Amino acid sequence: MKKPIILVTNDDGIMAPGIRHLVEFMLEIGDVVVVAPDKPQSGMGHAVTIVNPIRLEKITGNGAHDEYSCSGTPVDCVKLAVNKVLHRKPDLLVSGINHGSNSSINVIYSGTMSAAIEGAMEDIPAIGFSLLDYSYHADFVSGKKYVQQIARNVLKQGLPKGICLNVNIPAVSETELQGLKVCRQARGNWQEEFDHRKDPRGKDYFWLTGHFRLHEDSNETDEWALKQNYVSVVPIQFDFTAHGLIPELKKWTNNA
Amino acid sequence: MKKPIILVTNDDGIMAPGIRHLVEFMLEIGDVVVVAPDKPQSGMGHAVTIVNPIRLEKITGNGAHDEYSCSGTPVDCVKLAVNKVLHRKPDLLVSGINHGSNSSINVIYSGTMSAAIEGAMEDIPAIGFSLLDYSYHADFVSGKKYVQQIARNVLKQGLPKGICLNVNIPAVSETELQGLKVCRQARGNWQEEFDHRKDPRGKDYFWLTGHFRLHEDSNETDEWALKQNYVSVVPIQFDFTAHGLIPELKKWTNNA
Repeated sequence: MKKPIILVTNDDGIMAPGIRHLVEFMLEIGDVVVVAPDKPQSGMGHAVTIVNPIRLEKITGNGAHDEYSCSGTPVDCVKLAVNKVLHRKPDLLVSGINHGSNSSINVIYSGTMSAAIEGAMEDIPAIGFSLLDYSYHADFVSGKKYVQQIARNVLKQGLPKGICLNVNIPAVSETELQGLKVCRQARGNWQEEFDHRKDPRGKDYFWLTGHFRLHEDSNETDEWALKQNYVSVVPIQFDFTAHGLIPELKKWTNNA
Repeated sequence: MKKPIILVTNDDGIMAPGIRHLVEFMLEIGDVVVVAPDKPQSGMGHAVTIVNPIRLEKITGNGAHDEYSCSGTPVDCVKLAVNKVLHRKPDLLVSGINHGSNSSINVIYSGTMSAAIEGAMEDIPAIGFSLLDYSYHADFVSGKKYVQQIARNVLKQGLPKGICLNVNIPAVSETELQGLKVCRQARGNWQEEFDHRKDPRGKDYFWLTGHFRLHEDSNETDEWALKQNYVSVVPIQFDFTAHGLIPELKKWTNNA
């Protein structure tokens, strides 16, 4: 049987431990091609590079597969991979494993998830993986079984048009993981706290920091599942329309 | 009666004609504060600046209001404006007027709309405005009546929690505009065409270009409304969950 072609990307950069582990996990499932940013791109949202040219450089893989380093964003990586590297759609796109959570509202800021969403927009079955541990030496292996299970399931069963998966993995040992939990994006937001400083010339600058505020404690959400040590799986779509408000707005604009 | 406080931002940069016009339109409605990027930020999606510090500089306004130039993304501008400039939520946030369309799937790549969505996330009534003309000398005045009408309506009636408006204006004369049309985001995507070149040292580089492909011709979409010379109004939310797929996925993961 022919092996599936798996495109691997991320937003922490091609040298990050998270993507190195994801490549290893995927090499046990299919033929892997890596097209990933040459530098960290966290917090890039669904950014694309329009004003500047994009560099793409073939770098030494481990011999068994091709790897390309790209100067662009995660979304640029997906577009370039499909159009200029593979010259076809891969059978599966996996993004990550991100160093840090992309649960709840973080999906909108996430470069990891932007690559998966771009995949969904191009009708490529796509999954974004994130581990709830920001550190360089995070344990990416404890969730290996689930990462591979989800990837194999998506390869076998596909995903509906326009939908990708957002998978988050608690930062606990393999034995502590409770299994998969399908859930919805929890309602929450970031409460900003800017660290205001002055540079040596007396000019103001700011560091963006803050903490996450959860607005609900429903057991149907990803935040709840993660707290119970489940691997959360949220199906993600990209129709932003608030359909429920359309009738009301039509009255409002005298336009029924 | 006390005038409303209106925060104005954009993604084309604080000097772009689009935001200069929007400021003028809003000065007739309320007290205006501008916090906008110091350089173009088109295609930035919902990007935030985490790794680098952010600069914020008060620049000379026209005397009647304050303007701040920010080194960050449109989302950074909103966060800084609320936390470090206004020290409160504005009564209204308007973003734009963007030079170019943000209809259909463009909302996901749009820095203009990311600012409005960030507003919605912080419970600020927010509207993103875009004109379907990329040129510097585009006619931003023809849609003035509608821009002000929508802003006044939102100030008066508010918007439900977590919802902002995506307003696109056809590039036609005022007399040709047919009115407002409330609609949904059309299904479509970008068909990439990378322009592949070699630099003077023989190394590859790429320019991202392409054309938009519309996947439907329903008269309920923004694309249809714009073609009929209506100003399109799409309510936008930020729950990305594909709720309809959850029951199926639960079976799929043996997790019902």
